[in-house]
Amino acid sequence: MHLLIVGGSDAGISAALRAHELDSSVEITLLVADDYPNFSICGLPYYLSGETPDWRDLAHRKEFPGIKVLRRHKAVAIDAGQQAVSVSHEGAEATMHYDKLIVATGATPARPELAGHDLPNVFPLHTMEDSFAVHRRLEEGRCDAAVLIGGGYIGLEMADALTQRGLDVTLLSRTETVMPTVDAEIGLLVEQELRRHGVRVFTNVNAARVRTQASRLAIEDSAGKTHGADLVIVAVGARPETSLAGRAGAQLGVREAIAVTRQMRTNLPEVFAAGDCVETYHRLLKRPTYISLGTIAHKQGRVAGENAIGGDRAYAGTLGTQSLKVFELAVVCTGLRDREAQAEGFNPLTVPSSANDHKAYYPGATSLHMRVTGDLSSGHLIGAQIVGDRKAEISKRIDIVAAALFQEAKVEDLNDLDLSYTPPFSSPWDPVQMAAQSWSAAVRERLRTQGPQRHFEHAHLIDRAAV
Amino acid sequence: MHLLIVGGSDAGISAALRAHELDSSVEITLLVADDYPNFSICGLPYYLSGETPDWRDLAHRKEFPGIKVLRRHKAVAIDAGQQAVSVSHEGAEATMHYDKLIVATGATPARPELAGHDLPNVFPLHTMEDSFAVHRRLEEGRCDAAVLIGGGYIGLEMADALTQRGLDVTLLSRTETVMPTVDAEIGLLVEQELRRHGVRVFTNVNAARVRTQASRLAIEDSAGKTHGADLVIVAVGARPETSLAGRAGAQLGVREAIAVTRQMRTNLPEVFAAGDCVETYHRLLKRPTYISLGTIAHKQGRVAGENAIGGDRAYAGTLGTQSLKVFELAVVCTGLRDREAQAEGFNPLTVPSSANDHKAYYPGATSLHMRVTGDLSSGHLIGAQIVGDRKAEISKRIDIVAAALFQEAKVEDLNDLDLSYTPPFSSPWDPVQMAAQSWSAAVRERLRTQGPQRHFEHAHLIDRAAV
Repeated sequence: MHLLIVGGSDAGISAALRAHELDSSVEITLLVADDYPNFSICGLPYYLSGETPDWRDLAHRKEFPGIKVLRRHKAVAIDAGQQAVSVSHEGAEATMHYDKLIVATGATPARPELAGHDLPNVFPLHTMEDSFAVHRRLEEGRCDAAVLIGGGYIGLEMADALTQRGLDVTLLSRTETVMPTVDAEIGLLVEQELRRHGVRVFTNVNAARVRTQASRLAIEDSAGKTHGADLVIVAVGARPETSLAGRAGAQLGVREAIAVTRQMRTNLPEVFAAGDCVETYHRLLKRPTYISLGTIAHKQGRVAGENAIGGDRAYAGTLGTQSLKVFELAVVCTGLRDREAQAEGFNPLTVPSSANDHKAYYPGATSLHMRVTGDLSSGHLIGAQIVGDRKAEISKRIDIVAAALFQEAKVEDLNDLDLSYTPPFSSPWDPVQMAAQSWSAAVRERLRTQGPQRHFEHAHLIDRAAV
Repeated sequence: MHLLIVGGSDAGISAALRAHELDSSVEITLLVADDYPNFSICGLPYYLSGETPDWRDLAHRKEFPGIKVLRRHKAVAIDAGQQAVSVSHEGAEATMHYDKLIVATGATPARPELAGHDLPNVFPLHTMEDSFAVHRRLEEGRCDAAVLIGGGYIGLEMADALTQRGLDVTLLSRTETVMPTVDAEIGLLVEQELRRHGVRVFTNVNAARVRTQASRLAIEDSAGKTHGADLVIVAVGARPETSLAGRAGAQLGVREAIAVTRQMRTNLPEVFAAGDCVETYHRLLKRPTYISLGTIAHKQGRVAGENAIGGDRAYAGTLGTQSLKVFELAVVCTGLRDREAQAEGFNPLTVPSSANDHKAYYPGATSLHMRVTGDLSSGHLIGAQIVGDRKAEISKRIDIVAAALFQEAKVEDLNDLDLSYTPPFSSPWDPVQMAAQSWSAAVRERLRTQGPQRHFEHAHLIDRAAV
């Protein structure tokens, strides 16, 4: 049994590791297009900030026992009928046969509609090679100012990284507030944090054109402003890299990602796919979406690896859970935001609240801002967002909500969870439970103002009390 | 409608707050035996360490709008037939009628079999008055050395607190390792941390006798050693305070705690009870146990308050989730330990593992030691324990496991959870997921060594893959 895997990042490596750990007799070959198997792309900002001085440390692992890892091997064509892949390596082409194939070709940076995006010193940031190029620019000669195009998590992490490195940073975001995966109220707090650290933030604006100006770059935005820079990083999202699978006849789905079952099977026989190149089943929406995240790629890869050697596991689905550090802030979310939920036919109510991360009498307590979204008709949890100090255990607090959401919990069910408490770390009701109580209180308040009829109708919402 | 509540700590106050928030027309009277309604008893060590300089800050809240709080009012008898309570206040006795009564009389410290336990400067640590007495001893005259009797969480927190205050601390624990709520392997790491900070730790030993020696105290232990001290704190557990309810005819159950339904009803009509004075339904064992924890008291109080005014909510049950800070360590657990699980008829396997709290390439990563206990026959999660640096978000990591355990998840289900990841806070697989994977790997290894028959029999354990 020969398992061939195309792609050496999160999904491909996870698939290989899983197949090998379940059945060490399977022959596994993994093709890596570049020289960097299993590097943590999420770590690029920390290499560029100088916090991770040696790029080699970004490798999740360096040894792959039981897996034949072929570097600088690029799959150029799949012949699904013959169960064969044409592979090019240092100018030569060869054919490799497979019993099962896993396509994990990842994503490529979205091309912005930006005149001058191909000028020197204008970089995407998606691969190790990209980060080497940025790194060289940072090290060579004078590099005082950077313009970041994109207010998503790469733009935000790079604003933090390059500021720490001593650069003057300007961030251009086409969305109304930065970090469009959270509500504007939280995006504004992130902008505050950026500005507090000297980042110039412009929102609701597109980068229109980059041109060279003397030895530097000038970036014109759609509001008519021009920003000078020695370095421009373009991070405006990613699109699935599907050319290999597409040419072989793989069906594409949401946002042109490879269509897969929850078992990570494509429509091609014996061909699985996983990671940033495929659709992702959403656990709340109960249908495929497209989200590119390392956590998803790892899980899908693991499922693909297991199923490729005879298993029948289903990918459980994403909730879109994310976390981000921006300077001293942690920003986290899971599930759907209010507007998304509304568009999907939910009847959402989002309630903001705040609470200390731990008892105020114990030194170092900080305030968390939370937003809980629940469904008014059913009482079910839909999503949550938290922002606060990076030391406030926020990233694992959102995971408590994610674990409840995973089980289709009601908002009020959060209060039943037996969570840990000691004054240095929490409160007898954890902040996420206090946020749930705020949501329930807001619902009761709405019902009160709507009179007894509505009250009765929504009795299940009144925390299941027949009052 | 008059709701009378006896007890002004976590359960009593939670009940009052819940009843009031659901129906502000209910008349609520709450009797507090001392002068300190709603004080955080869990905060006493931080007052005594000096980290919380003003004891008044230990109050969870200071205002109780809509609730008549009567301080220094002690309930002396319940007449359930007449729906009346005799209340003594400053020497006078009065009768109060109720429509519904909630008994929340808490616990009292267990009396050790210790000659000399009533000598001056030998203190329990359970009430505000206790902590004032200890505080006076710490402030008045020379107080250089303390002996702590008990290796549970109060003993451990006080070892931390008094060391920080500059005292020489000796801790005597009758259990084989300190912190008997976690496995010995983790207890030993806690002992290491105590010793690293200068605490003298003696385990497997009882305090046999305290006597005065000149102006100090001498504590003789069962191993024949004598320890000098200016101050002794005895913290060897708590027992439910049930005399009031018991005299009124309330049925007692596990460990002589008041027997209650999951709706927190006693056998007496119109009488509810909650908190440290009652049995606690255990969600895994599916029967009552006795555990005294603030988190449980809050939840039970909330349920009692809701049901006393006409609700029908069930207390969802405890998993025994706990967290503790000891110097620079966090120690947390949820569910059953291996030995407990075995005694309860489970077929447990406990697998130790370790992982970094976040990606090692990002500065400040520390190693977590984890122990996952699962059932070999069903694959279900039974419990988990984690120890590591206090900044490693451990207390909320155990809550992810607690949320899964709450839903009767399998160990392998942890890997399906969509948890957050960014390199400064976690890994693509959170450490708790890596611990689950270690457990599954250990099970596969056992099955391999047991041959194909067992392999087939336990196919469901092989991570649900038909391999």
